[in-house]
Amino acid sequence: MTEILWGIIACGALAILYAVFTIQTVMKADAGNARMQEIAGAIREGAQAYLNRQYQTIGVVGVVIFALTWVLLGLPVAVGFLVGAVLSGLAGYIGMHVSVRANVRTAQAATVSLGRGLDIAFKAGAVTGMLVAGLALLGVAIYYYILTEILAYAPSDRTVIDALVALGFGASLISIFARLGGGIFTKGADVGGDLVGKVEAGIPEDDPRNPATIADNVGDNVGDCAGMAADLFETYAVTVVATMVLAAIFFAGQANFSALMVYPLAICAACIVTSIVGTYFVKLGANNSIMGALYKGVIASGVLSIAGLWAATHYVLGGFGEVGVANGVSITGQGLFLCGLVGLALTGLIVWITEYYTGIGYRPVRSISQSSVTGHGTNVIQGLAVSLEATALPTIAIVAGILFTYNIAGLFGTAIATTTMLGLAGMIVALDAFGPVTDNAGGIAEMAGLPKEVRRSTDALDAVGNTTKAVTKGYAIGSAGLGALVLFAAYNYDLQYFIAKANEPGSTVYQFFRGVEINFGLDNPYVVVGLLLGGLIPYLFGGIAMTAVGRAAGSIVEEVRRQFKAKPGIMKGTERPDYARAVDLLTKSAIKEMVIPSLLPVLSPIVLFFVVDAIGGRGAAFSAVGAMLLGVIVTGLFVAISMTSGGGAWDNAKKAFEDGFVDKDGVKHEKGSEAHKASVTGDTVGDPYKDTAGPAVNPAIKITNIVALLLLAVLAH
Amino acid sequence: MTEILWGIIACGALAILYAVFTIQTVMKADAGNARMQEIAGAIREGAQAYLNRQYQTIGVVGVVIFALTWVLLGLPVAVGFLVGAVLSGLAGYIGMHVSVRANVRTAQAATVSLGRGLDIAFKAGAVTGMLVAGLALLGVAIYYYILTEILAYAPSDRTVIDALVALGFGASLISIFARLGGGIFTKGADVGGDLVGKVEAGIPEDDPRNPATIADNVGDNVGDCAGMAADLFETYAVTVVATMVLAAIFFAGQANFSALMVYPLAICAACIVTSIVGTYFVKLGANNSIMGALYKGVIASGVLSIAGLWAATHYVLGGFGEVGVANGVSITGQGLFLCGLVGLALTGLIVWITEYYTGIGYRPVRSISQSSVTGHGTNVIQGLAVSLEATALPTIAIVAGILFTYNIAGLFGTAIATTTMLGLAGMIVALDAFGPVTDNAGGIAEMAGLPKEVRRSTDALDAVGNTTKAVTKGYAIGSAGLGALVLFAAYNYDLQYFIAKANEPGSTVYQFFRGVEINFGLDNPYVVVGLLLGGLIPYLFGGIAMTAVGRAAGSIVEEVRRQFKAKPGIMKGTERPDYARAVDLLTKSAIKEMVIPSLLPVLSPIVLFFVVDAIGGRGAAFSAVGAMLLGVIVTGLFVAISMTSGGGAWDNAKKAFEDGFVDKDGVKHEKGSEAHKASVTGDTVGDPYKDTAGPAVNPAIKITNIVALLLLAVLAH
Repeated sequence: MTEILWGIIACGALAILYAVFTIQTVMKADAGNARMQEIAGAIREGAQAYLNRQYQTIGVVGVVIFALTWVLLGLPVAVGFLVGAVLSGLAGYIGMHVSVRANVRTAQAATVSLGRGLDIAFKAGAVTGMLVAGLALLGVAIYYYILTEILAYAPSDRTVIDALVALGFGASLISIFARLGGGIFTKGADVGGDLVGKVEAGIPEDDPRNPATIADNVGDNVGDCAGMAADLFETYAVTVVATMVLAAIFFAGQANFSALMVYPLAICAACIVTSIVGTYFVKLGANNSIMGALYKGVIASGVLSIAGLWAATHYVLGGFGEVGVANGVSITGQGLFLCGLVGLALTGLIVWITEYYTGIGYRPVRSISQSSVTGHGTNVIQGLAVSLEATALPTIAIVAGILFTYNIAGLFGTAIATTTMLGLAGMIVALDAFGPVTDNAGGIAEMAGLPKEVRRSTDALDAVGNTTKAVTKGYAIGSAGLGALVLFAAYNYDLQYFIAKANEPGSTVYQFFRGVEINFGLDNPYVVVGLLLGGLIPYLFGGIAMTAVGRAAGSIVEEVRRQFKAKPGIMKGTERPDYARAVDLLTKSAIKEMVIPSLLPVLSPIVLFFVVDAIGGRGAAFSAVGAMLLGVIVTGLFVAISMTSGGGAWDNAKKAFEDGFVDKDGVKHEKGSEAHKASVTGDTVGDPYKDTAGPAVNPAIKITNIVALLLLAVLAH
Repeated sequence: MTEILWGIIACGALAILYAVFTIQTVMKADAGNARMQEIAGAIREGAQAYLNRQYQTIGVVGVVIFALTWVLLGLPVAVGFLVGAVLSGLAGYIGMHVSVRANVRTAQAATVSLGRGLDIAFKAGAVTGMLVAGLALLGVAIYYYILTEILAYAPSDRTVIDALVALGFGASLISIFARLGGGIFTKGADVGGDLVGKVEAGIPEDDPRNPATIADNVGDNVGDCAGMAADLFETYAVTVVATMVLAAIFFAGQANFSALMVYPLAICAACIVTSIVGTYFVKLGANNSIMGALYKGVIASGVLSIAGLWAATHYVLGGFGEVGVANGVSITGQGLFLCGLVGLALTGLIVWITEYYTGIGYRPVRSISQSSVTGHGTNVIQGLAVSLEATALPTIAIVAGILFTYNIAGLFGTAIATTTMLGLAGMIVALDAFGPVTDNAGGIAEMAGLPKEVRRSTDALDAVGNTTKAVTKGYAIGSAGLGALVLFAAYNYDLQYFIAKANEPGSTVYQFFRGVEINFGLDNPYVVVGLLLGGLIPYLFGGIAMTAVGRAAGSIVEEVRRQFKAKPGIMKGTERPDYARAVDLLTKSAIKEMVIPSLLPVLSPIVLFFVVDAIGGRGAAFSAVGAMLLGVIVTGLFVAISMTSGGGAWDNAKKAFEDGFVDKDGVKHEKGSEAHKASVTGDTVGDPYKDTAGPAVNPAIKITNIVALLLLAVLAH
């Protein structure tokens, strides 16, 4: 397996090479005139300042957890945590570093043509995408190599499993902080800036007279770029790790054991290569369809991944016959290959469903635009209706995926489908990360007073960005839904393992688990309690996040009002607003607000365990915690999909007015009309929905699961 | 037990007597001047016309189901269905009959004093309350009497159990149609009328020039009175029935079996008496606090119910020692008494929590009012944040209730707590049903041009009505959360019973269940699939309901605009609008829109069963359906609480502006200010949230459960 592991590491390295090479291409592009560079410089400084502060705060929490992990679980496990956290942070950091440099270059390129603009923006996005996939794969693969080959642990050794889980935990921790902190920053700036600028002062978005405008652009980078990168890094790492843990549980001691351990890594490696090839298919066609250009890349990656999946199965598992037996069921290479195909198909389905629910031109978004004609209230009602409805098809797709994969290859099949789904993360993140670049490019074009056509090009790119952003979130949460079974299974089998070992005659290990009886049946009240309390997490978490955005936005409104009052020259264009103060204010507020809600999913399983342990004993407590893991997925899936799809739909329903929306009676509503104003309300509501609360649910789900796994490991020690 | 059963029936009859007596008192009150009576007449006609049509439509569905039940399960079961459906319809019908007559009398009484107005309105509400509790109790008790004493079935006979479940199904069916149809009607009228009246034409609410104004008042009666009555009737009936089914399962053959079967009925009977006494405590005190007056009634009923519970336990169970053994656990009278107290405490807690989240003067509503100052968008964001957060405390209370009762007296203890909680339904429904009366009274006062002070009195009553309406919904869904375990247990034990009987050597009964193996473990993928698809029901259902309201409101906007155009005299006050057309339009639209979403929870368990049966076999199918029952509760609880509390909070956040809202900077925002307008947007959004989608989730949960139970019965035949 050593050569295969080296091959996998080579593929990860290829992603990094691609990123380095692409960064150079992007940096070589024309960075525009002095005014543009000045604006971009302000955005860059603000973003860097925020991210440094955010990582400092996370660093403090991280050091404490690192120390705790070391003491409780030993150094290899603590190092796993460190690797996950550092690499996740690095992916976001470098991605944002490129993003804040590509924005101005995209604006400049858009002065040449839409195609050139797309090219730079997409390349910048692809850097983040490949860094996420590459670093996550390298982190897991290299650390696994070190543990099993250099430190010579057996692949099924508890230290290896715990270290991999800790790696996932490190990634999750960065992710939840970055998603929330970034989300609060970006939407505080966006909502606050819009309210005081567009609504009160009547100046357009990104007008340089608005003191919050730089903060808004900074927010795009720290939230939509760095935050999203951390989220997907985590989803990727946790899924791969969980699949490997499952392989260790099912196949330890069987002939193909080490091959099956490496198989998920190989799938990811193959998909990295196909994603890289896919990026070269993203080219604006004759019809100028941006979405079409991006789809070419996705489809190319997807189709090539079939071959990649075949190759991984053929070379790693040695063919398509029986490769192992899990829970008494024979698992074949063919079955796993089919499960991988299901993962690819699900990715395609979720992209398609999300585009339907959030794209301009389909019924849902049109219905929201139409309902804006009758006012703010009906716009919001219809948006909420769409957001609720948007959960149906993805859920049915996920359910179909579970039924299909489970019947082909059991739980491990479901895990392989989830892994393959995430294999394409490099490509999907690239689609997403190009959004903040074009959003910024539009802002820079506006502030630097570039011609209207430039803004039109960046706006066209931005509208697609709304959909692709929703797609990525749907994809992340969809994989979480599919992966729910996998994470729960990891918990369940870990628990069974500890209990079995503790109950062996004369056993001296894992005595905490001695005589514990688990009942995960739905007829166990502790299971119902766990489901309900798990179900509460996304709701409470979402409520706190939304309130935080409201508060951050309120503080921006007051700051901008204060500046307008103190410096009357700002509105006349004779005085410069103090952009840095708004950035600084939001930085403090976002960092402060992100801590409490982030701790909710971390502490919930621990508190539940000890409370139920006191009331109903250990068996009840372990059962309740297990149920909490599924409860958080059951409501989290719906909360996250409804928020991210609904928010995307609201945003594009507003965008539909920018070129004039023709309602069902044939009346045309222009920008600035009452209907447009109503659509702006929906967009504002959708902002924290889709960019703060909704996407942060995904890391919240994962972190609850990972903490529960680590809790087992700690209790076992 | 026969005497006790007669005593229970006497208590039920007492509730009916109270209602008859109170109707006479209300009808004797002064019905105001000719103009007032004319307006009230139009409301009455519209409400009656709608209800007739609604019941006709339900009747068609009902006859089909009656016939199906007869063929599949026999006449006694079909009659059970009929009893549940007819009595539920009757409670709503008579309640509304009184409500549309009490409205004008309340308006007239309010010209005398606030206290007089409260008196008439509350009495009218109490009629509905006592009818709901009385008819539900009588229905279950008399039919149980007929089945066991006259037809001489054993209390544990399948026919008795199936007939009781069918009674619950009849009530559920009426409930889901009435909640949805009524909810779509009332909110279509409210939202549409406000949009075109308040926003476009700039005329106040309930202005007689608005052609939708009568429809709006009709809606209060058909939605908030008749719809709510059907909902609570159903919750009451289903809970009592489920508790009795559980008693039959646990205690059949034990010494106290028939006493334990009757015990839940006895608790309800005792609570009816205490509720009736409680109504006499509702008196406006010197401080003119309406909520205070209502609380006196609730507290009196609650405190007296402790004695009632004691008496029921003492006389029916014969004391506080061991009364039976369930699942090997000794159940004592004392334990069940304590569980009853938990039910009472939970009722109090949920009232208190809901008041906190929806009452003017507390942080949540104030935060929404405050956020209106910065605009429509922030108002909606904060409202959504509050709605998400509002789920936390009720969930924790329910979880505590489950843990406490289960540890005292097992599942049957939880069932007794739920039953006791619903025992107070007479009082709680009275609090709620007074809302539409005062709402109407305000409308009539406005349209008849009564002095401003009258409107102020009715508005004060109405503001309290917003909170009490939210309380009732929280109470209904809270009991559903607590009862989730009970309904699931009924399904689980029924299933086990059929399987055990089918597997007996030489058995010829229930052969459909032969060899079926059930696995409700969370590690069973079919369970996860069931949880996810069950979780989808409230979301999809809510989405469809919200869309339906949007559509109904849109049609009203167009109709009103058409009338304004066709009859220019309307706005000048020289021409009379055609009120009946708007009522008629909404009637058609509500009836049409209610059918599809109502069928969703009815068909979901059946479809899921047959699909999974085809894929994974019978055991998997039964497991998936069982999980669906819990899935629908897990998300339904959160969806319903968030919608009803959030909607109530939005409504009162708007009401806070009516006397001028002083924001945190000390600025006063009057009615008509920009902040007030923003608060109207939130109110509009909250309308379908709190009065259509949210409350309909409760019957949707119940119907999914009941259909699953009936499915078992049908498959067993």
